[in-house]
Amino acid sequence: MVYELYYWPGIQGRGEFVRLALEEAGADYVDLALVPEDDGGGVPALESILEDKRLQRLPFAPPFLKAGRQVIGQTANILLYLGGRHALAPRDQAGRLWTNQLQLTIADFVAETHDTHHPIANSLYYNEQKAAAKRRTRDFLANRLPKFLGYFERVIERNRARGAWLVGARITYADLSLAQVIAGLRYAFPSASRHALRSCPRVRALHDDVFARPRIKRYVASDRRIPFNNDDIFRRYRELDR
Amino acid sequence: MVYELYYWPGIQGRGEFVRLALEEAGADYVDLALVPEDDGGGVPALESILEDKRLQRLPFAPPFLKAGRQVIGQTANILLYLGGRHALAPRDQAGRLWTNQLQLTIADFVAETHDTHHPIANSLYYNEQKAAAKRRTRDFLANRLPKFLGYFERVIERNRARGAWLVGARITYADLSLAQVIAGLRYAFPSASRHALRSCPRVRALHDDVFARPRIKRYVASDRRIPFNNDDIFRRYRELDR
Repeated sequence: MVYELYYWPGIQGRGEFVRLALEEAGADYVDLALVPEDDGGGVPALESILEDKRLQRLPFAPPFLKAGRQVIGQTANILLYLGGRHALAPRDQAGRLWTNQLQLTIADFVAETHDTHHPIANSLYYNEQKAAAKRRTRDFLANRLPKFLGYFERVIERNRARGAWLVGARITYADLSLAQVIAGLRYAFPSASRHALRSCPRVRALHDDVFARPRIKRYVASDRRIPFNNDDIFRRYRELDR
Repeated sequence: MVYELYYWPGIQGRGEFVRLALEEAGADYVDLALVPEDDGGGVPALESILEDKRLQRLPFAPPFLKAGRQVIGQTANILLYLGGRHALAPRDQAGRLWTNQLQLTIADFVAETHDTHHPIANSLYYNEQKAAAKRRTRDFLANRLPKFLGYFERVIERNRARGAWLVGARITYADLSLAQVIAGLRYAFPSASRHALRSCPRVRALHDDVFARPRIKRYVASDRRIPFNNDDIFRRYRELDR
Protein backbone atom coordinates (compact mmCIF):
# COMPACT_ATOMS: atom_id res chain seq x y z
CA MET A 1 0.00 0.00 0.00
CA VAL A 2 1.23 3.48 -0.87
CA TYR A 3 0.26 6.02 1.76
CA GLU A 4 -0.79 9.54 0.81
CA LEU A 5 0.16 12.33 3.19
CA TYR A 6 -1.84 15.55 3.04
CA TYR A 7 -0.44 18.71 4.55
CA TRP A 8 0.06 22.40 3.86
CA PRO A 9 2.86 23.03 1.34
CA GLY A 10 5.89 25.11 2.27
CA ILE A 11 6.17 24.28 5.96
CA GLN A 12 7.24 21.32 8.07
CA GLY A 13 4.49 21.91 10.59
CA ARG A 14 2.78 18.97 12.23
CA GLY A 15 3.15 17.05 8.99
CA GLU A 16 6.83 16.66 9.76
CA PHE A 17 6.20 14.30 12.68
CA VAL A 18 4.39 12.00 10.26
CA ARG A 19 7.08 12.37 7.59
CA LEU A 20 9.83 11.37 10.00
CA ALA A 21 7.93 8.20 10.95
CA LEU A 22 7.26 7.31 7.31
CA GLU A 23 10.91 7.92 6.43
CA GLU A 24 12.33 5.92 9.34
CA ALA A 25 9.94 3.08 8.49
CA GLY A 26 11.06 3.16 4.87
CA ALA A 27 7.36 3.29 3.98
CA ASP A 28 6.07 3.97 0.50
CA TYR A 29 4.29 7.32 0.51
CA VAL A 30 3.39 10.28 -1.62
CA ASP A 31 3.70 13.66 0.04
CA LEU A 32 0.95 15.65 -1.66
CA ALA A 33 2.45 18.89 -0.33
CA LEU A 34 5.42 18.30 -2.66
CA VAL A 35 3.33 17.45 -5.71
CA PRO A 36 2.56 20.42 -8.01
CA GLU A 37 -1.08 21.48 -8.17
CA ASP A 38 -1.16 20.69 -11.88
CA ASP A 39 -0.26 17.11 -11.05
CA GLY A 40 -2.99 16.77 -8.44
CA GLY A 41 -1.09 17.91 -5.34
CA GLY A 42 -0.83 20.97 -3.13
CA VAL A 43 -3.67 22.77 -1.41
CA PRO A 44 -6.40 21.67 -3.88
CA ALA A 45 -5.63 18.01 -3.11
CA LEU A 46 -6.03 18.71 0.57
CA GLU A 47 -9.24 20.69 0.07
CA SER A 48 -10.74 18.00 -2.11
CA ILE A 49 -10.72 15.73 0.95
CA LEU A 50 -11.78 18.35 3.50
CA GLU A 51 -14.68 19.32 1.23
CA ASP A 52 -15.66 15.80 0.16
CA LYS A 53 -19.31 15.57 1.16
CA ARG A 54 -19.39 11.80 0.90
CA LEU A 55 -16.51 11.32 3.32
CA GLN A 56 -17.94 10.05 6.60
CA ARG A 57 -14.86 10.21 8.78
CA LEU A 58 -13.89 13.74 8.01
CA PRO A 59 -10.62 15.15 9.43
CA PHE A 60 -10.80 18.52 11.18
CA ALA A 61 -7.49 19.77 9.77
CA PRO A 62 -4.26 18.59 8.15
CA PRO A 63 -2.16 16.56 8.50
CA PHE A 64 -4.07 13.48 7.48
CA LEU A 65 -2.97 10.24 5.96
CA LYS A 66 -4.79 8.21 3.37
CA ALA A 67 -4.15 4.51 3.96
CA GLY A 68 -6.19 2.57 1.47
CA ARG A 69 -9.75 3.73 2.02
CA GLN A 70 -9.05 5.04 5.51
CA VAL A 71 -8.43 8.75 6.06
CA ILE A 72 -6.67 9.20 9.39
CA GLY A 73 -6.31 12.59 11.04
CA GLN A 74 -4.66 14.11 14.13
CA THR A 75 -0.88 13.75 14.24
CA ALA A 76 -0.70 11.55 17.35
CA ASN A 77 -3.45 9.33 15.97
CA ILE A 78 -1.66 8.89 12.65
CA LEU A 79 1.48 7.96 14.56
CA LEU A 80 -0.44 5.50 16.73
CA TYR A 81 -1.56 3.83 13.51
CA LEU A 82 1.86 3.89 11.84
CA GLY A 83 3.69 2.87 15.01
CA GLY A 84 1.73 -0.34 15.16
CA ARG A 85 2.22 -1.19 11.51
CA HIS A 86 5.89 -0.33 11.18
CA ALA A 87 7.41 -1.42 14.48
CA LEU A 88 7.86 2.15 15.64
CA ALA A 89 6.13 1.33 18.93
CA PRO A 90 6.26 -1.61 21.32
CA ARG A 91 4.11 -4.63 20.60
CA ASP A 92 2.38 -4.82 23.97
CA GLN A 93 -0.67 -2.69 24.74
CA ALA A 94 0.84 -1.01 27.81
CA GLY A 95 3.90 0.00 25.75
CA ARG A 96 1.69 1.35 22.97
CA LEU A 97 -0.30 3.46 25.45
CA TRP A 98 2.88 4.77 27.04
CA THR A 99 4.28 5.78 23.64
CA ASN A 100 0.98 7.47 22.81
CA GLN A 101 1.03 9.26 26.17
CA LEU A 102 4.50 10.64 25.45
CA GLN A 103 3.41 11.70 21.96
CA LEU A 104 0.45 13.60 23.42
CA THR A 105 2.78 15.37 25.82
CA ILE A 106 5.01 16.27 22.86
CA ALA A 107 1.89 17.58 21.08
CA ASP A 108 1.17 19.85 24.06
CA PHE A 109 4.78 21.03 24.00
CA VAL A 110 4.50 21.82 20.28
CA ALA A 111 1.22 23.70 20.73
CA GLU A 112 2.70 25.82 23.51
CA THR A 113 5.80 26.53 21.43
CA HIS A 114 3.63 27.62 18.51
CA ASP A 115 1.58 29.93 20.69
CA THR A 116 4.66 31.89 21.76
CA HIS A 117 4.47 33.80 18.47
CA HIS A 118 0.68 33.56 18.09
CA PRO A 119 -0.82 33.95 21.57
CA ILE A 120 -3.92 35.83 20.39
CA ALA A 121 -5.04 34.32 17.08
CA ASN A 122 -3.78 32.47 14.05
CA SER A 123 -5.94 34.76 11.96
CA LEU A 124 -3.70 37.72 12.91
CA TYR A 125 -0.12 38.42 11.87
CA TYR A 126 2.71 38.14 14.35
CA ASN A 127 3.17 41.90 14.20
CA GLU A 128 -0.40 42.38 15.37
CA GLN A 129 0.27 40.39 18.56
CA LYS A 130 3.94 41.11 19.20
CA ALA A 131 3.53 42.59 22.68
CA ALA A 132 1.49 39.59 23.81
CA ALA A 133 3.99 37.26 22.10
CA LYS A 134 6.82 38.77 24.13
CA ARG A 135 4.97 38.20 27.39
CA ARG A 136 3.93 34.68 26.48
CA THR A 137 7.43 33.76 25.33
CA ARG A 138 8.98 35.10 28.52
CA ASP A 139 6.80 32.72 30.53
CA PHE A 140 7.37 29.85 28.10
CA LEU A 141 11.15 30.13 28.26
CA ALA A 142 11.23 30.66 32.03
CA ASN A 143 8.73 27.99 33.08
CA ARG A 144 7.35 25.72 30.39
CA LEU A 145 10.45 24.96 28.30
CA PRO A 146 12.53 23.72 31.27
CA LYS A 147 9.54 21.80 32.62
CA PHE A 148 8.97 19.90 29.38
CA LEU A 149 12.65 19.26 28.71
CA GLY A 150 13.27 18.16 32.30
CA TYR A 151 10.36 15.76 32.01
CA PHE A 152 11.68 14.06 28.87
CA GLU A 153 15.17 13.93 30.37
CA ARG A 154 13.73 12.04 33.36
CA VAL A 155 11.76 9.69 31.10
CA ILE A 156 14.92 8.66 29.23
CA GLU A 157 16.81 8.36 32.50
CA ARG A 158 14.19 6.06 33.99
CA ASN A 159 13.84 3.89 30.91
CA ARG A 160 14.95 0.57 32.33
CA ALA A 161 16.24 -0.61 28.97
CA ARG A 162 19.00 1.98 29.49
CA GLY A 163 19.13 2.82 25.86
CA ALA A 164 19.12 6.34 24.55
CA TRP A 165 15.36 6.18 23.84
CA LEU A 166 12.18 7.21 25.57
CA VAL A 167 10.57 3.76 25.45
CA GLY A 168 12.35 0.44 25.72
CA ALA A 169 15.44 -0.50 23.76
CA ARG A 170 14.23 0.42 20.27
CA ILE A 171 13.42 3.69 18.59
CA THR A 172 9.74 4.74 18.56
CA TYR A 173 7.87 7.50 16.77
CA ALA A 174 7.95 9.49 20.03
CA ASP A 175 11.77 9.63 19.78
CA LEU A 176 11.53 10.92 16.21
CA SER A 177 9.05 13.59 17.30
CA LEU A 178 11.06 14.71 20.31
CA ALA A 179 14.19 15.05 18.18
CA GLN A 180 12.21 17.17 15.71
CA VAL A 181 11.03 19.44 18.53
CA ILE A 182 14.62 19.90 19.73
CA ALA A 183 15.72 20.81 16.20
CA GLY A 184 12.81 23.26 15.99
CA LEU A 185 13.59 24.86 19.33
CA ARG A 186 17.21 25.32 18.31
CA TYR A 187 16.03 27.05 15.15
CA ALA A 188 13.51 29.27 16.95
CA PHE A 189 15.39 30.06 20.15
CA PRO A 190 19.11 29.43 19.53
CA SER A 191 20.20 31.13 22.72
CA ALA A 192 17.41 30.12 25.12
CA SER A 193 17.37 26.51 23.95
CA ARG A 194 21.16 26.15 24.31
CA HIS A 195 20.80 27.35 27.86
CA ALA A 196 17.81 25.10 28.62
CA LEU A 197 19.39 22.01 27.05
CA ARG A 198 22.56 22.30 29.10
CA SER A 199 21.02 20.21 31.88
CA CYS A 200 19.49 17.67 29.47
CA PRO A 201 22.34 15.52 28.11
CA ARG A 202 20.02 12.57 27.39
CA VAL A 203 17.61 14.67 25.35
CA ARG A 204 20.54 16.14 23.38
CA ALA A 205 21.92 12.66 22.73
CA LEU A 206 18.51 11.41 21.62
CA HIS A 207 18.31 14.27 19.13
CA ASP A 208 21.74 13.40 17.74
CA ASP A 209 20.96 9.69 17.57
CA VAL A 210 17.74 10.30 15.65
CA PHE A 211 19.34 12.60 13.11
CA ALA A 212 22.22 10.13 12.65
CA ARG A 213 19.86 7.32 11.58
CA PRO A 214 20.71 6.49 7.97
CA ARG A 215 17.19 6.95 6.65
CA ILE A 216 16.59 10.17 8.59
CA LYS A 217 19.97 11.49 7.45
CA ARG A 218 19.13 10.77 3.83
CA TYR A 219 15.73 12.37 4.23
CA VAL A 220 17.07 15.56 5.84
CA ALA A 221 19.68 15.88 3.08
CA SER A 222 17.05 15.42 0.37
CA ASP A 223 14.86 18.09 -1.18
CA ARG A 224 11.88 16.42 0.47
CA ARG A 225 12.83 18.08 3.76
CA ILE A 226 11.38 21.59 3.78
CA PRO A 227 13.73 23.97 5.65
CA PHE A 228 12.61 25.61 8.89
CA ASN A 229 11.06 28.98 8.11
CA ASN A 230 9.03 31.77 9.69
CA ASP A 231 5.65 30.64 8.38
CA ASP A 232 6.01 27.53 10.47
CA ILE A 233 5.45 26.36 14.05
CA PHE A 234 9.03 27.11 15.07
CA ARG A 235 9.88 30.71 14.20
CA ARG A 236 12.98 32.73 14.81
CA TYR A 237 12.26 36.24 16.05
CA ARG A 238 15.35 37.66 17.69
CA GLU A 239 13.29 39.76 20.10
CA LEU A 240 11.70 36.62 21.57
CA ASP A 241 14.91 34.64 22.15
CA ARG A 242 15.87 35.92 25.59
CA MET B 1 -9.97 -3.91 39.67
CA VAL B 2 -10.66 -0.59 41.36
CA TYR B 3 -9.27 2.30 39.37
CA GLU B 4 -7.72 5.30 41.09
CA LEU B 5 -8.20 8.68 39.44
CA TYR B 6 -5.75 11.43 40.30
CA TYR B 7 -6.62 15.03 39.58
CA TRP B 8 -6.60 18.51 41.13
CA PRO B 9 -9.30 18.93 43.77
CA GLY B 10 -11.99 21.60 43.38
CA ILE B 11 -12.31 21.71 39.62
CA GLN B 12 -13.78 19.50 36.91
CA GLY B 13 -10.94 20.26 34.52
CA ARG B 14 -9.66 17.55 32.24
CA GLY B 15 -10.34 15.01 34.94
CA GLU B 16 -14.05 15.37 34.18
CA PHE B 17 -13.71 13.67 30.78
CA VAL B 18 -12.31 10.63 32.56
CA ARG B 19 -14.96 10.77 35.31
CA LEU B 20 -17.79 10.78 32.77
CA ALA B 21 -16.37 7.68 31.08
CA LEU B 22 -15.91 5.87 34.39
CA GLU B 23 -19.44 6.79 35.48
CA GLU B 24 -21.09 5.78 32.20
CA ALA B 25 -19.17 2.50 32.31
CA GLY B 26 -20.31 1.91 35.88
CA ALA B 27 -16.67 1.25 36.69
CA ASP B 28 -15.35 0.92 40.21
CA TYR B 29 -13.09 3.87 40.96
CA VAL B 30 -11.79 6.08 43.70
CA ASP B 31 -11.55 9.76 42.87
CA LEU B 32 -8.58 10.86 44.95
CA ALA B 33 -9.56 14.52 44.44
CA LEU B 34 -12.61 13.87 46.62
CA VAL B 35 -10.72 12.01 49.33
CA PRO B 36 -9.54 14.22 52.25
CA GLU B 37 -5.80 14.65 52.60
CA ASP B 38 -5.91 13.00 56.01
CA ASP B 39 -7.32 9.90 54.38
CA GLY B 40 -4.64 9.76 51.72
CA GLY B 41 -6.29 11.87 49.02
CA GLY B 42 -6.03 15.38 47.56
CA VAL B 43 -2.92 17.08 46.28
CA PRO B 44 -0.43 15.04 48.37
CA ALA B 45 -1.74 11.81 46.78
CA LEU B 46 -1.17 13.28 43.37
CA GLU B 47 2.27 14.59 44.26
CA SER B 48 3.32 11.26 45.72
CA ILE B 49 3.01 9.80 42.22
CA LEU B 50 4.50 12.74 40.33
CA GLU B 51 7.47 12.71 42.70
CA ASP B 52 7.90 8.94 42.92
CA LYS B 53 11.48 8.42 41.84
CA ARG B 54 10.99 4.72 41.19
CA LEU B 55 8.11 5.26 38.79
CA GLN B 56 9.37 4.56 35.29
CA ARG B 57 6.39 5.68 33.26
CA LEU B 58 5.96 9.05 34.84
CA PRO B 59 2.98 11.23 33.85
CA PHE B 60 3.70 14.83 32.92
CA ALA B 61 0.59 16.22 34.63
CA PRO B 62 -2.82 15.19 35.98
CA PRO B 63 -5.21 13.63 35.20
CA PHE B 64 -3.79 10.17 35.45
CA LEU B 65 -5.37 6.85 36.19
CA LYS B 66 -3.93 4.02 38.22
CA ALA B 67 -5.10 0.73 36.80
CA GLY B 68 -3.44 -2.06 38.73
CA ARG B 69 0.27 -1.34 38.40
CA GLN B 70 -0.15 0.82 35.31
CA VAL B 71 -0.19 4.62 35.65
CA ILE B 72 -1.81 6.09 32.56
CA GLY B 73 -1.63 9.79 31.75
CA GLN B 74 -2.99 12.20 29.14
CA THR B 75 -6.78 12.45 29.01
CA ALA B 76 -7.23 11.09 25.48
CA ASN B 77 -4.87 8.22 26.26
CA ILE B 78 -6.76 7.29 29.43
CA LEU B 79 -9.98 7.32 27.40
CA LEU B 80 -8.40 5.17 24.68
CA TYR B 81 -7.60 2.65 27.40
CA LEU B 82 -11.01 2.82 29.10
CA GLY B 83 -12.92 2.85 25.82
CA GLY B 84 -11.45 -0.50 24.88
CA ARG B 85 -12.12 -2.09 28.26
CA HIS B 86 -15.65 -0.78 28.86
CA ALA B 87 -17.24 -0.83 25.39
CA LEU B 88 -17.12 2.95 25.11
CA ALA B 89 -15.48 2.66 21.69
CA PRO B 90 -16.01 0.41 18.67
CA ARG B 91 -14.36 -2.99 18.65
CA ASP B 92 -12.61 -2.63 15.30
CA GLN B 93 -9.27 -0.87 14.99
CA ALA B 94 -10.45 1.69 12.42
CA GLY B 95 -13.35 2.62 14.71
CA ARG B 96 -11.01 2.95 17.67
CA LEU B 97 -8.69 5.25 15.73
CA TRP B 98 -11.61 7.37 14.54
CA THR B 99 -12.90 7.76 18.12
CA ASN B 100 -9.40 8.69 19.26
CA GLN B 101 -9.12 11.19 16.39
CA LEU B 102 -12.36 12.87 17.49
CA GLN B 103 -11.18 12.92 21.09
CA LEU B 104 -7.94 14.64 20.07
CA THR B 105 -9.95 17.26 18.19
CA ILE B 106 -12.07 17.76 21.32
CA ALA B 107 -8.81 18.15 23.29
CA ASP B 108 -7.70 20.90 20.89
CA PHE B 109 -11.11 22.56 21.30
CA VAL B 110 -10.77 22.41 25.10
CA ALA B 111 -7.24 23.85 25.03
CA GLU B 112 -8.34 26.75 22.84
CA THR B 113 -11.33 27.40 25.08
CA HIS B 114 -9.07 27.45 28.14
CA ASP B 115 -6.67 29.86 26.51
CA THR B 116 -9.42 32.47 26.00
CA HIS B 117 -8.99 33.50 29.64
CA HIS B 118 -5.30 32.61 29.88
CA PRO B 119 -3.68 33.57 26.55
CA ILE B 120 -0.36 34.64 28.10
CA ALA B 121 0.46 32.25 30.93
CA ASN B 122 -1.12 29.96 33.49
CA SER B 123 1.32 31.34 35.99
CA LEU B 124 -0.42 34.76 35.79
CA TYR B 125 -3.87 35.71 37.05
CA TYR B 126 -6.69 36.45 34.63
CA ASN B 127 -6.57 40.11 35.65
CA GLU B 128 -2.95 40.30 34.56
CA GLN B 129 -3.86 39.23 31.00
CA LYS B 130 -7.36 40.62 30.63
CA ALA B 131 -6.69 42.78 27.57
CA ALA B 132 -5.10 39.86 25.73
CA ALA B 133 -7.94 37.60 26.90
CA LYS B 134 -10.49 39.92 25.35
CA ARG B 135 -8.69 39.86 22.01
CA ARG B 136 -8.19 36.12 22.04
CA THR B 137 -11.81 35.49 23.02
CA ARG B 138 -13.08 37.76 20.26
CA ASP B 139 -11.25 35.61 17.70
CA PHE B 140 -12.28 32.38 19.41
CA LEU B 141 -15.98 33.25 19.39
CA ALA B 142 -15.91 34.65 15.85
CA ASN B 143 -13.80 31.95 14.18
CA ARG B 144 -12.85 28.93 16.23
CA LEU B 145 -16.05 28.18 18.14
CA PRO B 146 -18.25 28.00 15.00
CA LYS B 147 -15.55 26.01 13.20
CA PHE B 148 -15.32 23.34 15.90
CA LEU B 149 -19.08 23.14 16.46
CA GLY B 150 -19.80 23.00 12.73
CA TYR B 151 -17.28 20.19 12.40
CA PHE B 152 -18.88 18.02 15.08
CA GLU B 153 -22.34 18.77 13.67
CA ARG B 154 -21.16 17.43 10.30
CA VAL B 155 -19.58 14.36 11.89
CA ILE B 156 -22.89 13.41 13.55
CA GLU B 157 -24.76 14.16 10.32
CA ARG B 158 -22.48 11.90 8.30
CA ASN B 159 -22.51 9.05 10.78
CA ARG B 160 -24.11 6.37 8.67
CA ALA B 161 -25.61 4.65 11.69
CA ARG B 162 -27.94 7.67 11.80
CA GLY B 163 -28.00 7.65 15.55
CA ALA B 164 -27.46 10.72 17.64
CA TRP B 165 -23.82 9.84 18.23
CA LEU B 166 -20.46 10.76 16.72
CA VAL B 167 -19.38 7.18 15.99
CA GLY B 168 -21.65 4.31 14.98
CA ALA B 169 -24.89 3.43 16.74
CA ARG B 170 -23.60 3.32 20.33
CA ILE B 171 -22.33 5.94 22.70
CA THR B 172 -18.55 6.39 22.91
CA TYR B 173 -16.32 8.34 25.25
CA ALA B 174 -16.05 11.02 22.55
CA ASP B 175 -19.80 11.68 22.89
CA LEU B 176 -19.42 12.05 26.66
CA SER B 177 -16.55 14.49 26.17
CA LEU B 178 -18.31 16.58 23.54
CA ALA B 179 -21.40 16.87 25.76
CA GLN B 180 -19.18 18.04 28.61
CA VAL B 181 -17.62 20.70 26.36
CA ILE B 182 -21.08 21.96 25.38
CA ALA B 183 -22.08 22.17 29.04
CA GLY B 184 -18.85 24.04 29.76
CA LEU B 185 -19.32 26.47 26.88
CA ARG B 186 -22.85 27.23 28.07
CA TYR B 187 -21.49 27.98 31.52
CA ALA B 188 -18.63 30.15 30.24
CA PHE B 189 -20.33 31.93 27.35
CA PRO B 190 -24.11 31.73 27.87
CA SER B 191 -24.86 34.28 25.19
CA ALA B 192 -22.24 33.45 22.56
CA SER B 193 -22.75 29.69 22.87
CA ARG B 194 -26.53 30.00 22.51
CA HIS B 195 -25.94 31.93 19.32
CA ALA B 196 -23.33 29.50 18.00
CA LEU B 197 -25.36 26.39 18.84
CA ARG B 198 -28.43 27.61 16.99
CA SER B 199 -27.16 26.05 13.77
CA CYS B 200 -26.06 22.81 15.48
CA PRO B 201 -29.21 20.84 16.36
CA ARG B 202 -27.38 17.51 16.34
CA VAL B 203 -24.73 18.68 18.76
CA ARG B 204 -27.43 20.07 21.07
CA ALA B 205 -29.33 16.79 20.92
CA LEU B 206 -26.16 14.82 21.64
CA HIS B 207 -25.57 16.97 24.73
CA ASP B 208 -29.13 16.32 25.94
CA ASP B 209 -28.91 12.60 25.23
CA VAL B 210 -25.68 12.25 27.17
CA PHE B 211 -26.94 14.12 30.21
CA ALA B 212 -30.18 12.09 30.14
CA ARG B 213 -28.30 8.78 30.49
CA PRO B 214 -29.32 7.26 33.83
CA ARG B 215 -25.78 6.85 35.14
CA ILE B 216 -24.69 10.31 33.99
CA LYS B 217 -27.83 11.85 35.48
CA ARG B 218 -27.16 10.17 38.81
CA TYR B 219 -23.57 11.30 38.72
CA VAL B 220 -24.38 14.94 37.92
CA ALA B 221 -26.97 15.00 40.72
CA SER B 222 -24.48 13.53 43.20
CA ASP B 223 -21.96 15.41 45.29
CA ARG B 224 -19.23 13.72 43.26
CA ARG B 225 -19.88 16.23 40.45
CA ILE B 226 -17.91 19.39 41.22
CA PRO B 227 -19.84 22.47 39.99
CA PHE B 228 -18.42 24.62 37.20
CA ASN B 229 -16.41 27.45 38.73
CA ASN B 230 -13.97 30.19 37.80
CA ASP B 231 -10.82 28.31 38.74
CA ASP B 232 -11.59 25.84 35.98
CA ILE B 233 -11.15 25.48 32.22
CA PHE B 234 -14.56 26.96 31.47
CA ARG B 235 -14.88 30.34 33.19
CA ARG B 236 -17.64 32.89 33.12
CA TYR B 237 -16.39 36.44 32.71
CA ARG B 238 -19.19 38.66 31.53
CA GLU B 239 -16.82 40.93 29.60
CA LEU B 240 -15.67 38.01 27.43
CA ASP B 241 -19.11 36.73 26.45
CA ARG B 242 -19.85 38.90 23.43
